[in-house]
Amino acid sequence: MHLEAIYHRVTQNWAYAYDKRTLHIRIRTKKSDVARIDLNCADKYKKEKTTVVVPMERWASDDLFDYWEAAVQPPYRRLVYYFILQSEGQTVYFMEKGFFRESLPENMDDGLFDFPFLNPADVIAPPEWVKDAVFYQIFPERFANSDASLNPPNVEPWGGVPTRDNYFGGDLQGVIDHLDHLNALGVNAIYFNPIFEATTNHKYDTRDYLKIDSQFGTNETFKKLVAACHERGIRVMLDAVFNHCGHTFPPFVDAKEKGQASKYADWFHVREWPLTVVDGIPTYDTFSFEPIMPKLNTENPEVKEYLFNIARFWIEEAGIDGWRLDVANEVDHKFWREFRDIVKGINPDTFILGEIFHDSIPWLQGDQFDAVMNYPFTNAVLEFFAHRRSTAAEFTSSINTQLAGYPRQINETAFNLLGSHDTIRLLTLCGGNVKLMKLASLFQLTFFGSPCIYYGDEIGIDGEMDPLNRKCMEWDPAKQDQDLFAFFKRIIALRKQYTALRTGNLKFQQDGNSEQTLVYERWNEQDHFLILINNSDASVSSTATSSADSWTDVESGNTVTAKQGQVTVELPAFGYSILHASRG
Amino acid sequence: MHLEAIYHRVTQNWAYAYDKRTLHIRIRTKKSDVARIDLNCADKYKKEKTTVVVPMERWASDDLFDYWEAAVQPPYRRLVYYFILQSEGQTVYFMEKGFFRESLPENMDDGLFDFPFLNPADVIAPPEWVKDAVFYQIFPERFANSDASLNPPNVEPWGGVPTRDNYFGGDLQGVIDHLDHLNALGVNAIYFNPIFEATTNHKYDTRDYLKIDSQFGTNETFKKLVAACHERGIRVMLDAVFNHCGHTFPPFVDAKEKGQASKYADWFHVREWPLTVVDGIPTYDTFSFEPIMPKLNTENPEVKEYLFNIARFWIEEAGIDGWRLDVANEVDHKFWREFRDIVKGINPDTFILGEIFHDSIPWLQGDQFDAVMNYPFTNAVLEFFAHRRSTAAEFTSSINTQLAGYPRQINETAFNLLGSHDTIRLLTLCGGNVKLMKLASLFQLTFFGSPCIYYGDEIGIDGEMDPLNRKCMEWDPAKQDQDLFAFFKRIIALRKQYTALRTGNLKFQQDGNSEQTLVYERWNEQDHFLILINNSDASVSSTATSSADSWTDVESGNTVTAKQGQVTVELPAFGYSILHASRG
Repeated sequence: MHLEAIYHRVTQNWAYAYDKRTLHIRIRTKKSDVARIDLNCADKYKKEKTTVVVPMERWASDDLFDYWEAAVQPPYRRLVYYFILQSEGQTVYFMEKGFFRESLPENMDDGLFDFPFLNPADVIAPPEWVKDAVFYQIFPERFANSDASLNPPNVEPWGGVPTRDNYFGGDLQGVIDHLDHLNALGVNAIYFNPIFEATTNHKYDTRDYLKIDSQFGTNETFKKLVAACHERGIRVMLDAVFNHCGHTFPPFVDAKEKGQASKYADWFHVREWPLTVVDGIPTYDTFSFEPIMPKLNTENPEVKEYLFNIARFWIEEAGIDGWRLDVANEVDHKFWREFRDIVKGINPDTFILGEIFHDSIPWLQGDQFDAVMNYPFTNAVLEFFAHRRSTAAEFTSSINTQLAGYPRQINETAFNLLGSHDTIRLLTLCGGNVKLMKLASLFQLTFFGSPCIYYGDEIGIDGEMDPLNRKCMEWDPAKQDQDLFAFFKRIIALRKQYTALRTGNLKFQQDGNSEQTLVYERWNEQDHFLILINNSDASVSSTATSSADSWTDVESGNTVTAKQGQVTVELPAFGYSILHASRG
Repeated sequence: MHLEAIYHRVTQNWAYAYDKRTLHIRIRTKKSDVARIDLNCADKYKKEKTTVVVPMERWASDDLFDYWEAAVQPPYRRLVYYFILQSEGQTVYFMEKGFFRESLPENMDDGLFDFPFLNPADVIAPPEWVKDAVFYQIFPERFANSDASLNPPNVEPWGGVPTRDNYFGGDLQGVIDHLDHLNALGVNAIYFNPIFEATTNHKYDTRDYLKIDSQFGTNETFKKLVAACHERGIRVMLDAVFNHCGHTFPPFVDAKEKGQASKYADWFHVREWPLTVVDGIPTYDTFSFEPIMPKLNTENPEVKEYLFNIARFWIEEAGIDGWRLDVANEVDHKFWREFRDIVKGINPDTFILGEIFHDSIPWLQGDQFDAVMNYPFTNAVLEFFAHRRSTAAEFTSSINTQLAGYPRQINETAFNLLGSHDTIRLLTLCGGNVKLMKLASLFQLTFFGSPCIYYGDEIGIDGEMDPLNRKCMEWDPAKQDQDLFAFFKRIIALRKQYTALRTGNLKFQQDGNSEQTLVYERWNEQDHFLILINNSDASVSSTATSSADSWTDVESGNTVTAKQGQVTVELPAFGYSILHASRG
């Protein structure tokens, strides 16, 4: 047994409370190295009467490891435990104080793994609604221009070529006027890029956090928008740019003018006075090295109170349902912990979503964010479906590594996007191949988490990197890809109909026939899905292990019958099949 | 290369800020598998101008792994990085998105490890004084009886046999009257077992958290004690029993009487009303299954405010320097985060020490505790020195595993005890062999962290498990082991004289001559120590690698000269040698 591959620690994704009664205990072993693992667990103060031995399930694998999990409900909410690992006649006991071959050590009690107490306050509990959400990201300047009176000077005709600094006049009334489109698509939450007063078309350089930018409307327009969304069952999430402000933000203007004498001198991270730029490097910390985005000193109690007040204001005044936190990982953890207390204190159902491009475990312990923008997911999906640079096995491995890295409830609410205002459009990444784009989206929409669709992707808008990924929304039905739109409507509806496609279990099956065929199952107590995806430009006959006798193809309505525990499906080039069976 | 043995994640002990400018990046590899590791790191927004390649140091090893570390000071406080691992002509690149053999992947940027920003607020920073502290634990009922007027009824003569419920009349005036002893010993901090009003002799069943138990004195006596300690350079830490109260605690009495109608009904974790005991199991959560210790509901805002007020009171009123938190790991993390904010808000130098018997990484991220009672250290030291059940190699492995599991500053302030009111006395565990006890204490006093001496150990008090480990302190010099006392004074003085023995680097050298010979070095820029310990009952000639030409034996004053990079020292049975060389 390869002991050096084994990992477990009573922390993070390895041992956590899934809910107020249930602990998940996980361990990893070298791939295909261990045949069976049992978890011996007990209450530490009454071992003799509470010991149970629970077989662990090998629930995921990647190219190096098998991942095992057991769910336990300790009667007195305390659990001490050790692992019993078996392979080919060999038994190894693994406890906190080390590995023991063949027999347990004499004095075990001082060396067991210990989950001391399942306190409800520590359960990582993102808002329930997020598990059922399908988000739609709106870049407000480019979604719809309904109120010409708000048009900025030099506004260009709708549908022109976007540049870094031109304007097309998108506004909040435009969103209100097109909520039918969102309902038709089936999304139930909007993520808005910044809408507060700023100087650029993307509004990430905030001047006034308490005021809707006058190009978009007024605070009243926004309240009307939120109310209209809520009436239609659509939640609203705003972009909180708290890492940095804009260069026209009055405290920064004051500090720049008055230097160290400014009463805002400590609102920023100043390396050297005065606030200026030397050889392309600002003398103060900024987002990246961008002089117009000075980093805020979020350790200063005045700054904290200022920003917390903004967080409060938009929840209390306008009733927003979530905050998306820009450049969230460059702000201190202490700030976010206080931010969470304040936000959740007003409404525990408020969603807190961090923008982090990497592994985000330090922020996802229940004390800071509910979820992050899941870019590692994005990258894996694009690598396989859009770029076609990875095999199905590599893709599966990557997704399983990610799932194993987080508690289950974190996977259930991950914000899974395939594109945004910061990336090349999905259709463009797919080389204009709508079929490929559908496959990527199918996977996104039948996976854990809350999928997010970037405005216009659903009707076939394409676009290279910024500024071309911020084209005006196309409202002429004749110019929209209606087939693609129908696809999105269909799969979103399917996702909403079946809980199994949202929070059900997931298992990948590798099909030996092709490196480009992906086969996976989603299931819960009611339903079972078997999804087969052919990510190649040739038709394939794909065979999968079948746990049901017969299935229904949800799109064609055809019955697919299993033979000797297997089903075979013919998939055209870039085709897919979604098979469903009831278990209830 | 054994990729499955490699572990790194941008969290906890693997990547952390050591101070406001310095990041420590660590990785583990299979033991003796990798020859060299370099860390390629840069600022993510200006890679081309900021990339540096830092060789990593193999700083510790245990039986399975080598642990590597690099310290980096990123100019703009942001760091992206990957590892370059080399062994026998093979190169492997390791980044967040996986392992790459021989060459880097095309699109690297989305898969680098990312430490997004070094925010000072997130630096784990235990109080500086703790690194230099030597604690002395006092069980107040048994230390000294100075005020006979406070004697409880049926008080027994000083020095009698302790039982679970008898009294000898120890009091706070007794401590005040014996501070000379503490100064003579050289300790500079006291950890007091509970002193608040309660019904037992150990006072862990609190009745009134705001009142010194009348058997020990008054609140005024305690303030006098703290003032007297501070005058002598001695800090004072109290025991906060916040996980549970005593059965005479008025809110519990009320809840027991009035049931669900009690206004304190939600102060406890009630599984079933009324509050009673059925088949030996209380109907409410308790410490263990102990009916007289009801667990407090620390999620209830009233309970929180009540307990936080106690935490505030003793700091503000009496000026205490630390809180030791009883059964700390069974209380919710959220409570401790708020507790920390309050305590550090009054005085950031207040030490917060949790009682946790296991790996404690979830509490040691800078947001909860400064340190924990380091029982894994205790167990390893006792296993090797007292029980003599492990070899020097096993002991070294165990200690290195522990060091690798925590950030360096956590190791520098770990509360390292070899006994307490909850364990068999050290001398008894050593089978009465004072020489063995000295060796264990020598290791404790020349290791990282803040060592703690249980009252009386220094003059040879022995005792089996509770209640016999709580004997009266021996004040008759003729009955004290003066040789042992002199040893403790000498080694504590040495520790206080040399920073290298507290926070210097540590390296173990294994001596092939004997499984019972331990050799280790401690060093900083000023001083170098080489310590050789013979943990066997036969004399040995011990040879160690020597980085200095000559050494001084600090106890004999003899010069020990190195030959060809080695020194040889003759060690009697259970003997030791402390060699010192100046580097300044």
